[in-house]
Amino acid sequence: MVDIAIIGAGPAGMMAALYASRAGKSVLLLDMLTPGGRLHSTYQVDNYLGFGKVTAQELIAKMVAHLRDLDIKEERGAVQRLDRFSDAYVIITDETTYQAKTIIIASGTRPKPLNVPGECAFLSRGISYCAVCDSTFFQGEDVVVIGGGDAALEESLYLAQTMKSVTIIHDLAEYTAIKGMIERVHEVPHIHHLPSTRVVQFRGKETLTHVEVENLLSGAHIMIPAQGAFIYSGNLANTTYADHLPIHDDDGFIVVDRDMATSERGIYAAGDVTKKDHRYIVTAISDGAIAALSAVKYLDGIRKKD
Amino acid sequence: MVDIAIIGAGPAGMMAALYASRAGKSVLLLDMLTPGGRLHSTYQVDNYLGFGKVTAQELIAKMVAHLRDLDIKEERGAVQRLDRFSDAYVIITDETTYQAKTIIIASGTRPKPLNVPGECAFLSRGISYCAVCDSTFFQGEDVVVIGGGDAALEESLYLAQTMKSVTIIHDLAEYTAIKGMIERVHEVPHIHHLPSTRVVQFRGKETLTHVEVENLLSGAHIMIPAQGAFIYSGNLANTTYADHLPIHDDDGFIVVDRDMATSERGIYAAGDVTKKDHRYIVTAISDGAIAALSAVKYLDGIRKKD
Repeated sequence: MVDIAIIGAGPAGMMAALYASRAGKSVLLLDMLTPGGRLHSTYQVDNYLGFGKVTAQELIAKMVAHLRDLDIKEERGAVQRLDRFSDAYVIITDETTYQAKTIIIASGTRPKPLNVPGECAFLSRGISYCAVCDSTFFQGEDVVVIGGGDAALEESLYLAQTMKSVTIIHDLAEYTAIKGMIERVHEVPHIHHLPSTRVVQFRGKETLTHVEVENLLSGAHIMIPAQGAFIYSGNLANTTYADHLPIHDDDGFIVVDRDMATSERGIYAAGDVTKKDHRYIVTAISDGAIAALSAVKYLDGIRKKD
Repeated sequence: MVDIAIIGAGPAGMMAALYASRAGKSVLLLDMLTPGGRLHSTYQVDNYLGFGKVTAQELIAKMVAHLRDLDIKEERGAVQRLDRFSDAYVIITDETTYQAKTIIIASGTRPKPLNVPGECAFLSRGISYCAVCDSTFFQGEDVVVIGGGDAALEESLYLAQTMKSVTIIHDLAEYTAIKGMIERVHEVPHIHHLPSTRVVQFRGKETLTHVEVENLLSGAHIMIPAQGAFIYSGNLANTTYADHLPIHDDDGFIVVDRDMATSERGIYAAGDVTKKDHRYIVTAISDGAIAALSAVKYLDGIRKKD
């Protein structure tokens, strides 16, 4: 049985592994894929202080190399179920079963896909799920944002600061974001609006050049020139294995306190999988550090302050 | 007038500058010293994911290099006073005056010094203010912890996991930490206790070898062999320039919400200077990113959600 099992080897999980291992605890780091998490869907990173401009792959390689120096047991497996067993936890994957005294859930999120042709082909070649991460690579270009909620409109405003134009494509007649946000996007002249419109296909050669959309009222198809497309139709939490535990909100995001502790004794969570406002690499690794330190304190029998 | 003035160029301030600049805002980054903040009092860093083992000076150099690519105005100056002026802010330093639409306070903390001989000479040569940062460099050694509050005892437990011995030196008869913590340090056989004892001098050659202490009851002096000394007699917030603003607690730490906003419109804070539980490099840069994004949103006239 390990002291701390970490589910998910994205930045949050890797950082948790680093802190837990440095504290002298035995660590299992479990992921269904190679380490890196959502970093894999980003081409370049220029907001991780100290690295300058670095490709996401290079950053992942450096993070993994950092962990290789430590005594961390890395395993592959898709987690099917997490259960309490006596004073510990059992993780059941598609391959095998693990036991751990504490759990750090860092299994992240996946973007809710549009499920239209070209979406996979142009991922990281024009299609992005994070304006703050990737917008600098499209400065002065025409981009589209797909979605009509708070995140879509917030990111449209962010993008409008540096883009030639931003076209918001939304499949309903009205945006679902809060009123102040809707007023604000309408004040920016180079933000264009395509309500009642759905994406039919992403088009291009090496990289994205056009988005084919359909007006849902008229049925007309048009081609919108766009070098970038930012998809904000929501994210799904990767937590089906914990559905039966009372630690998540209605959408599956794990609810934590400021020590990254869930309501279940011995279960912590970190990174995008937690219910929160800001989801970036640095916020994830910050969470990971705190979750690991909290798990270490729990293992050492130290009760939480206040 | 700049869009965002950042007071303090430690990790939090540098990260805030990076995010603010990437969002297209004009940024002033102000510090009384060279960038780096409390990193300067650490010899080596091995908990910044992706860097492996790196000297603090090398890490600072890489952070500074990262910022050099951006259009950030860096200035030196000790801030004397921060005042609202109309819809903006005025920063008065010992040299000059700046105006900014928004402020990010990232001026950090300084350790409350013991004010005993050798304290400065052996800083980063045995003396540390952060067990989680530096403990791995003393593994298997004899170390002392100076202090008797929650932080001192928590860090003693942390250190005890990897140290040959930990001796807690405290100038009162009883620890001031919470009860559970006190019980816990007494359960660990290789944690030793020196109550009613004060440090007289730190001794060594190139690096620390002994701590000379005085028993306050008997007046006896003894020499404790120690390769490491971790000082937890508290931290002081570097915020005297904002004493007149209603944004800090009784100890001068800036009170922020989860968006790193203070109660003063347009003033944000990030890093160690904020009132919080966890003070590490990664938590500081996470704060810095969030503070900058919040300031950007404020500048763009976007009201906060909920």
